[in-house]
Formats: sequence, C-alpha cells, structure tokens
Amino acid sequence: MKKKYLLAPGPTPVPERTLLAMSGPMIHHRTPQFSEIFAESCELLKDVFQTKNDVMILSASGTGAMEASITNLFSPGDEVLAINGGKFGERWGQISEAYGLTVHWVKVEWGDAVKPAAVKEALDANPNIKAVLAQASETSTTVQHPIEELAQLTKDRDCLLIVDGITAVGVADVPMDKWGVDVMVSGSQKAFMLPSGLAFISLSDKAWAFAETSKCPKYYFNLKKEKKNIAKQTTAYTPAVSLIIGLRESLLMIKEEGLDNVFARHARLAEAARNSMTALGLTLLAPENPSFATTGVYVPEGVNGGAFVKYMRDELGVTMAGGQDHLKGKIFRIAHLGYIDTFDMITAVAAIEMALTKFGHSIEAGKGVAAAQAVLIKGYKSATPA
Amino acid sequence: MKKKYLLAPGPTPVPERTLLAMSGPMIHHRTPQFSEIFAESCELLKDVFQTKNDVMILSASGTGAMEASITNLFSPGDEVLAINGGKFGERWGQISEAYGLTVHWVKVEWGDAVKPAAVKEALDANPNIKAVLAQASETSTTVQHPIEELAQLTKDRDCLLIVDGITAVGVADVPMDKWGVDVMVSGSQKAFMLPSGLAFISLSDKAWAFAETSKCPKYYFNLKKEKKNIAKQTTAYTPAVSLIIGLRESLLMIKEEGLDNVFARHARLAEAARNSMTALGLTLLAPENPSFATTGVYVPEGVNGGAFVKYMRDELGVTMAGGQDHLKGKIFRIAHLGYIDTFDMITAVAAIEMALTKFGHSIEAGKGVAAAQAVLIKGYKSATPA
Repeated sequence: MKKKYLLAPGPTPVPERTLLAMSGPMIHHRTPQFSEIFAESCELLKDVFQTKNDVMILSASGTGAMEASITNLFSPGDEVLAINGGKFGERWGQISEAYGLTVHWVKVEWGDAVKPAAVKEALDANPNIKAVLAQASETSTTVQHPIEELAQLTKDRDCLLIVDGITAVGVADVPMDKWGVDVMVSGSQKAFMLPSGLAFISLSDKAWAFAETSKCPKYYFNLKKEKKNIAKQTTAYTPAVSLIIGLRESLLMIKEEGLDNVFARHARLAEAARNSMTALGLTLLAPENPSFATTGVYVPEGVNGGAFVKYMRDELGVTMAGGQDHLKGKIFRIAHLGYIDTFDMITAVAAIEMALTKFGHSIEAGKGVAAAQAVLIKGYKSATPA
Repeated sequence: MKKKYLLAPGPTPVPERTLLAMSGPMIHHRTPQFSEIFAESCELLKDVFQTKNDVMILSASGTGAMEASITNLFSPGDEVLAINGGKFGERWGQISEAYGLTVHWVKVEWGDAVKPAAVKEALDANPNIKAVLAQASETSTTVQHPIEELAQLTKDRDCLLIVDGITAVGVADVPMDKWGVDVMVSGSQKAFMLPSGLAFISLSDKAWAFAETSKCPKYYFNLKKEKKNIAKQTTAYTPAVSLIIGLRESLLMIKEEGLDNVFARHARLAEAARNSMTALGLTLLAPENPSFATTGVYVPEGVNGGAFVKYMRDELGVTMAGGQDHLKGKIFRIAHLGYIDTFDMITAVAAIEMALTKFGHSIEAGKGVAAAQAVLIKGYKSATPA
C-alpha cells in the first residue's frame, strides 16, 4: 500500500463530498432539475468572484476562457499589452497574436512581479492599447502581480484590465468590482476543488461595451450568447453536467467556510510553505511577491531537480510540480490551494525533508516541519485546551 | 420515492462502473499514471472510430470539435457545402460563416436524408468547394444521412468529407477509414456513456494536408498541437482528467461487448422503438432513413407536445427529448444510445403508453410494449430454457 498525496497547482484534490455529488445518476441539462443547480452555481460564483456581474461557465480548460477574453472583446489589429513574467503571461500574448492583435510586451524576470510604473510608461507611450493582460497569480513563477495598482492605471483610460485569476480567485482577495478589474478568468481544478474541465469568466460593464464592437471570429466561446442563456438558467451548448453538479457542492463548501476564512487559510498555508523552506536553508523563487496558491523553491546545488520531484512522486507518493520552460529541473513548486489544510502542508514539508536527505543534501530533519507548525497553529483556537 | 430514467439523446446514462472510476482521488495530468490512462483511451478510441489515425480528445462539448474541424483546416474565403437538414446541419454552416468561409447550403426537409445526387450537383457546379459538412445522424430530426455515398463523391476530388458523428460513432457502423471519411467528430455524453465535457476528433491523411495551409485563427482548439502531444501521451492544455479516467472505463465496456454487438444492440433498440410506436398508431418523423441513436415520433393531434414530454419527465420520471426549433411541441424523441438495453426501452414505451392514455389519446395499452418485446427478444439466446 502506498497512499498518494496531491500538492500540485492544479488539478488539486477534490473533496469526498464533491466526488459523491458528481457520482449520482446523470441528469439532462435542459430540465428544471439541472437549471436549479446551474442557477445556484452561477449565483455562488458571483460571491467568490466578488462581482455583481454574471459569471459564465464554459466547458473548457482555463485557456479556453483566456481565449474567450480576447476573441469576444477585440478585433484584429487592436493593440494590447501583455505582462510576460512567466508561462501564462506569455500565453496571453500568444493567444492575442493568434487572433491578429498587436501585442506590446512588458517583460518581467521570472520570479519578479511587474512594476506598475513599467505598465504606466507603456500605456502613456501607446495610447491605443485597449487592454492590459495580466496574471493575478503567475503559477509558473509563484508570483502575485499587483492587480489593484494595475487597475488604477486602466480605470480612467479607454483600456481594460484583463486578469487570469486561474490560481487566484478563491485563493487571495482580488475583489473584481471593488478594484475595477474588467475581465476575470478562472478554472475549476484550482481553488474550486473540482476536476479540470470548467472555466469561468466574468466581465465588467466596461468590458461588455467592448464586446459590442468586437470583430474577432468566435463560435464555441461566445460570451454574449452565454450571457443571454444564463438569464434562462442554461448554457448555449451542452454543458459539462457532472462537473457543474460538483461545482455547486464545492461552492457551498466555500460559502460555509466563509470567503475571508478561505483567504486566511491560503495565506497561512503559503506562509508555512515559505517559512519551512527558508528554515531548511533553501532559497525561494519569489520571496518578494509570493503567490498564495503555490510556492516555488530552488532545488539546492548538486541535487538533480527532475529526479528530486520524481522521487517524491513515485517513491514517497507525494506529487508536487517541477519548473516549466527554463526553470525546468531548477525549482520545485509546493501547491497549497483548494482542498488543502494544515496536515497536507506538514506532509509536503516532511516529504521534502526526506527527499533532500535521500539526495545527500544535508539538512536538520524536522526543522522545516517545526517552522510550518509555528505558522499553522495560528489557524486554531488560541485558548489552551483544559 | 420516484425513480428517474434518462432516455434523452445526450447526456445519456453513465454506467455505475464508469461513475465509480471517476470517483477516485484526483490525479495530476503530467504523471505516468495519467499518461497510461490517456494513451490507452486514445488507442481504444481508434477502434471505436474505426481508424488508424489518432483520435484527439478535446475538453469541450461536441460543438468545440466541430469548430476545430473548420478552423484547423480552412481559411477565410474558402467554400464549403453544408447539408442543412436539421439543427446540427445548420450549425455546421453557422460555424463556417463565423470564421469567414463561404457556405453553399443544401437544404433538406426535416425528417429526410440528403440525396447524394443533390450534393453531386452542387459539387459539380462549384468545383472550389473544399469540404462537404454532414451529420451521420442528425439528432434533431432522428435521420441517418448516407455517409458512404457522400464519401464516394468527395474521395476523388480535392474536397473533404467532414462528418459530425456525435450521435453515430459507437452507435452505427460508420467506418471512417474504410469509407473515406476525412474528419469524424464525436462527444462523450452519447455512445461513450460519459458525462458531457469531452469531444473527440480524428483526421484522415488527406485532412491533415489541409491543416498545413489553414489560415483561420485558432488557439485552444489546435489539432496539430494536440497531435504532437498525443505522441508524448499528453494534451496541449490541462485535460478534463476525471472524464478521461471515465472514458477508459466506458471504452473497455465497449471493447468487452464487441463493436459489432454494440451496433447490433443499437439497431435492435431502434427497431423496437419504431415498431412499438407504429403499433400504437403513431407516425414516425423519419420512417425512411432512421437514426439508430434516437427515434422521432409525432405527437398525436389534440395532444399538447410540450405538456406530454413534461408529464413523462416530471410525473412519471422518464426524461425524453421534445422537438427543437420548428418541431418544438410537435414531436418527442426516444433516445436509445449508450448505456441502454431491453428494459430501458420497455420503460420508455410503457411511459409513452401511460402518458397517451392520460392525455386522452385512445390506444390499446400494452400493444406498443408487445411490439418492442418481439424485437428485443432477438438479442437473447435463441434456445428455449430447459
């Protein structure tokens, strides 16, 4: 017997309660029974997105919703600014270019957050830029970008702020309406504690106005059509029925925990991850602006990063992510979003300690776990039990 | 207590075995564990598609794979011919127009199959037509189109035959390679006995050559990228992990039953549906070229079609589909594809008899059930039990 533990930045573990909800007999999507589940899910999604606007559910990965943001709001030749500080920032620009938009790139060192001043400079120099494309949490570099400051730059211009919140919504406080984010995108297999297969997207009124003049071709990802269908408690095309049944269950869990508590839990888990790693003498990839969803850590000199992550996964049964692109083999990423709590983090840290020792990197076993404990205990009642 | 029965043309019932397979702990998609499931599913899909070429799995509804057929093979201005004999034939043309293609429409009366001579005439008159877009089974009108004959028309021209096999693959014998179908599309929530959320698509060598010159924009639905990833036992973007785990289970069930037996079962169920309805004196929508997936039946004069389908669903617990667009309220559709067997069909026919009586339409109760029995018994051993 070898128990398995999943601590990767998506798919994340699915709660037993949600698995059970999805295991019932299939139901038809054009029935009052499904409409009720769908409508309730849409309402609960608005709370998590912190918006008064509709949140549309697409049957696709998060990348599908990123594509929808571009194809539904712009036309070929339109200029956009892509913040490229990681694999997903790069994807924003690639999608835009695929649809004939002109992309201004703001390059950011992997591991750093974008400087709002650099974005302001680019916007001032190119007044035709119609959107800033950003990640709230750049999963590949475990960085949190300054979305509130970026929104300050776009809100008085004829320019949208479009945010990939795939590993941020339901993890960190990124209040869409309050800050003035125009498009927010997310995906099911992250904080929503679901299997992959659903993407979510919400548009501000300012963004809906852009949709009126968009000329990019689209069919499957048609946000105006989906919005009309939401009013009828349905979707334009056959939705992923079982995943939406699971979505309601996971959203109810988020509501029961309370959004502030959800954010506090993620902040605590992230702090525990960082403190434990530095206690072990390891170096963080993003010490300055760390994501609450996942923590990137440099593999120590002399340790083969690929083999290290593989050993944890195949021998210890603990799955984390390695690095992507030029960080491949150089970092590992502990994910701590979704259905993750204190003892999942303890498991992660202990597995890292055991693997480091196995790979001949000298550490004091238990020191990382102790540092994690010191943070994680704050999540419990402060009174000493009688 | 009211037990529920699902006899709609998708989503179809999901076998308990597949539900259980999907209920396990979530696994990461970039692991050997998932790659093995994915690769096995891709191989098994080839058997069901009856092709030697790769079958790509997209996280989307079937409409997403229809869109991929257009955007990955053509360029704006290209001419295609859409066979418009129902809601889904119409969709082929709409998708093509959305991407700037020029559509030649061959209109077919709802309930009829297309006449190959009409297609030949259009192809002869318009030698620039690059593709014929058809449904193998047009779900909205319960018609089977003559795919083998259409393939004869395209195979010696510089023209592709693109087939929506969403309710045909795994239902009726539509051998892709043998007949010369160039693109075949299907969806998870039909014969594949899965929840909605996956689409499948396979291309002939002739179609892959078209992909080399296609200029339509695309990003999320990128078939060349997916094909490259299949070789690495993975997908371009995060796949719908749990649905693919279920897919393998359902494909194993199809393999165990044997594809010929699967086709024979669907043919038998469809014959039982037709015979039972005519025995009750009802009129079929498509008596000439009926689909094996679903049988359309006119609601008798004096019966409110919408109320009739609603009564079966909400009172009797038996969900069938009504008509779409101009057939709304005029027909009902008994679906008999996927995880459906003898006594599901008996249930459907009995429910129809009970509802007809309830709505004051005079029939001889049991007569339809008897007609179904006479067909369905042929699926069992012929020897009389000792």
